[in-house]
Amino acid sequence: MFKKFKIPDATIGRLTAYSRFLKEADEKGISTVSSQHIAEATGVTPTQVRKDLAYFGEFGTRGVGYNPRELYNYIMKILGLDKKWKVAIFGAGHLGTALSQYKGFLERGFEIVCIFDNDPEKVGKKLNNVEIFHINDLKTKARELNIELGIVAVPAQAAQEVINQMVEAGIRGIINFAPVNVTVPENVVLRRVDLASQLEYLTYYLGENR
Amino acid sequence: MFKKFKIPDATIGRLTAYSRFLKEADEKGISTVSSQHIAEATGVTPTQVRKDLAYFGEFGTRGVGYNPRELYNYIMKILGLDKKWKVAIFGAGHLGTALSQYKGFLERGFEIVCIFDNDPEKVGKKLNNVEIFHINDLKTKARELNIELGIVAVPAQAAQEVINQMVEAGIRGIINFAPVNVTVPENVVLRRVDLASQLEYLTYYLGENR
Repeated sequence: MFKKFKIPDATIGRLTAYSRFLKEADEKGISTVSSQHIAEATGVTPTQVRKDLAYFGEFGTRGVGYNPRELYNYIMKILGLDKKWKVAIFGAGHLGTALSQYKGFLERGFEIVCIFDNDPEKVGKKLNNVEIFHINDLKTKARELNIELGIVAVPAQAAQEVINQMVEAGIRGIINFAPVNVTVPENVVLRRVDLASQLEYLTYYLGENR
Repeated sequence: MFKKFKIPDATIGRLTAYSRFLKEADEKGISTVSSQHIAEATGVTPTQVRKDLAYFGEFGTRGVGYNPRELYNYIMKILGLDKKWKVAIFGAGHLGTALSQYKGFLERGFEIVCIFDNDPEKVGKKLNNVEIFHINDLKTKARELNIELGIVAVPAQAAQEVINQMVEAGIRGIINFAPVNVTVPENVVLRRVDLASQLEYLTYYLGENR
């Protein structure tokens, strides 16, 4: 697999924020924005904005700024968001249900196409208009629906096995919400969302020891 | 408020990972680990481990390594985790319910003490043994239960108002799961968990344009 050069995760997160602001600016009919504008709207410094964009080449006109639509389109392309992505959720519990309702996905081009579970009570039903299939049908459905990304919202003890099945079914990008370390082959991109560590970003700043 | 010096978010995330590994190593009775060991267990380079730790001073003995328990305790202190934190969840929908069940919180010292909602059908009931209170009782309960951190799992349109109430009730650290930008005063630490942007970390690496 062709590997992209490594840029900091935080840069990717900020590009997302910049793109949201640029879209709004374009929709308001604004034709030029400066790195100062982008910085103010997203809570970073102008230097940081310029540094983040510099990873990807030359943008804008010195002393003039950026055209919001052009920069937006370019960032979306960098983020791989110039296409729609088909996403499946694994686990139809509370977290899977919450994720299937999440409004922010479609807006960025992520279409939740189905949910997988192993509970016969749940299989065949729909969550927010998205059908629940049995995990045993994953291979067939993955091909049929062209599933590219998967979100894992199963209990920790089931996560590795479900992820193995996802990899076998050809899913190339996986987000794991289960609080457990799992492994994938090198050609699969895995990201763990550790909910406790989200709290640790707060306590780092709130801790009273220093 | 005393502000800590700014270290990259990604470093805080990695410190969390290092601390989990160090705890395991200590529990296994291992008395010395190298940055190489820590790096291998957490999927980063040894240079990155040394760089991350260097933000906080001198550790270990050159050519010998680190004592897992000492380094673990030190990192927990850096992360503000040498004390327990009282956490409230806002919103008793699917996401709030999923969060109230999440096993990983208590393990890191985060105790979910209650849930707030405005639905009279839910108030007074319990989710996983955690009581649901009415949001109108927030000020009283925040004082009574010494709530320090809050997790926002309410619909986007309600988030800013709930967060205003949290700030007024003295909550100093807030995680916002609602897909909307909100503001807090300078003395409050806010972190937004944008679930769509989690997917964008994957598509950045999977995008086919470069």
